[in-house]
Amino acid sequence: MDKRAPTRVSRRSLIAGSVMAGGAIAAVGPAAMLNQPAASAARARTRRLTMYAERIGDNLIGYGLAPGQATVPGPLLEIYEGDTLEIELVNTTDQRLSIHPHGVNYDTNSDGAPLNGSFNEPGETRVYTWRTQEQYRASGGFYMPGSAGYWHYHDHALGGEHGTGGILRGLYGGLIVRRQGDLLPDRQFTVVFSEMTINNKTAPNTPMFECRHGERVEFVCIGHGSQPHTFHLHAHRWADTRTGMLRGDSDYSNVVDNKNLDPGSSFGFQVLAGEAVGPGAWMYHCHYQAHTDTNGMAGIFLVRNADGSMPPGAQEAIDRFHGHTHAAATTQAPTTGHGGH
Amino acid sequence: MDKRAPTRVSRRSLIAGSVMAGGAIAAVGPAAMLNQPAASAARARTRRLTMYAERIGDNLIGYGLAPGQATVPGPLLEIYEGDTLEIELVNTTDQRLSIHPHGVNYDTNSDGAPLNGSFNEPGETRVYTWRTQEQYRASGGFYMPGSAGYWHYHDHALGGEHGTGGILRGLYGGLIVRRQGDLLPDRQFTVVFSEMTINNKTAPNTPMFECRHGERVEFVCIGHGSQPHTFHLHAHRWADTRTGMLRGDSDYSNVVDNKNLDPGSSFGFQVLAGEAVGPGAWMYHCHYQAHTDTNGMAGIFLVRNADGSMPPGAQEAIDRFHGHTHAAATTQAPTTGHGGH
Amino acid sequence: MDKRAPTRVSRRSLIAGSVMAGGAIAAVGPAAMLNQPAASAARARTRRLTMYAERIGDNLIGYGLAPGQATVPGPLLEIYEGDTLEIELVNTTDQRLSIHPHGVNYDTNSDGAPLNGSFNEPGETRVYTWRTQEQYRASGGFYMPGSAGYWHYHDHALGGEHGTGGILRGLYGGLIVRRQGDLLPDRQFTVVFSEMTINNKTAPNTPMFECRHGERVEFVCIGHGSQPHTFHLHAHRWADTRTGMLRGDSDYSNVVDNKNLDPGSSFGFQVLAGEAVGPGAWMYHCHYQAHTDTNGMAGIFLVRNADGSMPPGAQEAIDRFHGHTHAAATTQAPTTGHGGH
Repeated sequence: MDKRAPTRVSRRSLIAGSVMAGGAIAAVGPAAMLNQPAASAARARTRRLTMYAERIGDNLIGYGLAPGQATVPGPLLEIYEGDTLEIELVNTTDQRLSIHPHGVNYDTNSDGAPLNGSFNEPGETRVYTWRTQEQYRASGGFYMPGSAGYWHYHDHALGGEHGTGGILRGLYGGLIVRRQGDLLPDRQFTVVFSEMTINNKTAPNTPMFECRHGERVEFVCIGHGSQPHTFHLHAHRWADTRTGMLRGDSDYSNVVDNKNLDPGSSFGFQVLAGEAVGPGAWMYHCHYQAHTDTNGMAGIFLVRNADGSMPPGAQEAIDRFHGHTHAAATTQAPTTGHGGH
Repeated sequence: MDKRAPTRVSRRSLIAGSVMAGGAIAAVGPAAMLNQPAASAARARTRRLTMYAERIGDNLIGYGLAPGQATVPGPLLEIYEGDTLEIELVNTTDQRLSIHPHGVNYDTNSDGAPLNGSFNEPGETRVYTWRTQEQYRASGGFYMPGSAGYWHYHDHALGGEHGTGGILRGLYGGLIVRRQGDLLPDRQFTVVFSEMTINNKTAPNTPMFECRHGERVEFVCIGHGSQPHTFHLHAHRWADTRTGMLRGDSDYSNVVDNKNLDPGSSFGFQVLAGEAVGPGAWMYHCHYQAHTDTNGMAGIFLVRNADGSMPPGAQEAIDRFHGHTHAAATTQAPTTGHGGH
Repeated sequence: MDKRAPTRVSRRSLIAGSVMAGGAIAAVGPAAMLNQPAASAARARTRRLTMYAERIGDNLIGYGLAPGQATVPGPLLEIYEGDTLEIELVNTTDQRLSIHPHGVNYDTNSDGAPLNGSFNEPGETRVYTWRTQEQYRASGGFYMPGSAGYWHYHDHALGGEHGTGGILRGLYGGLIVRRQGDLLPDRQFTVVFSEMTINNKTAPNTPMFECRHGERVEFVCIGHGSQPHTFHLHAHRWADTRTGMLRGDSDYSNVVDNKNLDPGSSFGFQVLAGEAVGPGAWMYHCHYQAHTDTNGMAGIFLVRNADGSMPPGAQEAIDRFHGHTHAAATTQAPTTGHGGH
């Protein structure tokens, strides 16, 4: 059993949130909806928040938006193209560490890399500034890409020059930069394949991502560590584009239900949970057979009925998942504490 | 030498077929053409077929469309968006197994995963239903993707919860879901990189894919196992899109001749065989040097002259391939038995 | 210390060039600009050049455009769709070797593969011909892709059937095929992840890619060997398209700053150096933690001030890079000899 789970459960409902376009930090529960963004880039804002890097139990270190609320993965941060994010990182540990983002703009002081002396000494507080921009036209009909994307952040300083130690202990999280007009989800989940774990857990203690039938669910998938991986979700598919959706008949982009999730890469997509397949306990897993079979890189995407009740067979599936993975099976139904954010 | 080859040769000409858009099952030989699809999605149909999972020799297990005709990979299945495929799977083995598809819609009963109790016990027959749909417009100009794509199916129950044992023995195959208007090929080949094999074979016993100069040839590439791979084809290239083709001048998609084929992933493309390069014995292989060099993940794409005769140098190349890979070289020319489907 | 560096420095300024659209071979220095291509495909030309495969020191073998000027990677070759490249390869070594391109058209005589008897015996000279073409319309609104792309070339014959030995020693280089109208860069760098090295070097001896703030810099990234990799560049991003740029608002392509660079794959992109982030010493590295941490797959992308002077902190970063990677730190500032081409 996962000794960390009880502790983390009590925290999740408080902090498993997003930094909203409006600057507020909101819990993302079953009924949470994200605010509509400002209609114009002229309303780009600077958001300020404080992140705390702190120990969780004996082995983990996480980021949190308030003291005592660090999680693995850290909070899912969300902004719009044009916004700036000023992150005051408080290092409550006795290790050197930092926060390094992907996809956004930052100067060398906010690089988060020891190469540029950009990190927090033990106990130190330091501000990292991330800026974003819209795409713009270059010559020849080409556009230089803007910041919008499903990105991520992670430590780049603990235990070496590249954050290997910090990532290994859980110092990572998702970062979404939206474009004006992007569709907003009803619910969001962050899935990190790091070494041979999912969010630093292995089956049957991997997160159970719960939602209701028909909800627009957004997955943010992040790869870390030193192993290649592929992310597969049963009974749902997405376009291999910035949004996971297509533009229409003339869009020939690949559609996938399995995608490489190798170290440093990230992608995201939205599905309508259980659309055309019904509610149920759907598996998500790494498709490297040894990773899922031997190492337990598998979990459940639980699509409840629209009214929140359990669909037929789902509880049995959950019981099987908890039973068969460990030789000493437990028939105990999981609590929502197994859910991720 | 591959002891299985003689047995498989005699079967291939009978069953290396596709489930056609019209519902018929046809052998795909040099002259085979696929029927044009119905012009409208309103003509979506339900296709029914029976698949047999059965042992092939001592080590392999395959899927086949008739008793005694199992192959590795299994038959290439092909439908159109809107179609439904009802597969009655007959398990003739003494092992638990299933069939799990990628890309299409199925409810938990047809998941093929033990998690949902969806598998065939030894000797059991069970129906799996796969449905498909067209893309449709969501809000904001975004489209939710339809089912069209180069997908695949595989066991998800033999020897564990994830089909590792079944996949290892050959329980996999290709699945194409076409969109109305997609171009149809003259010939189709399924290439599965699984562990350190191609279609469970290694050089020089890997399939030799044969066609004629100028034919529109479709490759369906599938990754399996626990190793990363890249698929490379000499002298031909394709767009990294759903169809392998582009939309025109405004399509900036990547064009590749080498693509990741990691476990659970699949892609497909069409080339005009030998276009602008001529007929000949062209190599296809995994580009991980150790995989092709040490493990024999290489084979020949034989583009014959348009009249079916051998182009200059091709037989010598084939002889070299058979000679140099094994220290004890054979100068015997391969029969068509080395061809894949 | 890298004993090869002094020798290679003196060569680079002479030969680190491109085969230009006009057929000339030019040094690519800070001020070099590529010529504008001919305005029409009707001006497609045949370019002829001689390449020398030769030993560099005890362990390396490289390609060069003149005797005594071989480099690792070899010269970056650049042509336009429609052009033909005739390469007279002089093998100055005592090993069988060849040159095999990706992405372009060639007949079996120019395959570069022993399968087709296409290689240079020791001391032999042989001509390889690479042709290219524009995309063209097939039926149904689909276009067959042209040759444009960020490709590469490599040995396919040294030490076996697949060039494993030649690639290991440095017989590889970049190949760009442009489409009319593509934007041309101010500066170009070739980055090859091969086994656990970058351009056959490891930190701190990996190439330092130098440019000035605001220059349009083009990276050509190539994967080789038998390991998976991901290429990550700090503070810059690109679209995952043929050009690394987008088409405008209706282009939903992925934008990335980290991308798989597995064996046989290649991609390229252009960034405006330091745009919106400022000049500085920016890290590029493989994001597999063990590859960068343990094996030294990391280097510096040095964006100087627009006037060529060093930005604040950059020299300190370079010193750190040279100091921390080796236990016996050197405080000596790197010369331009650490720069790549």
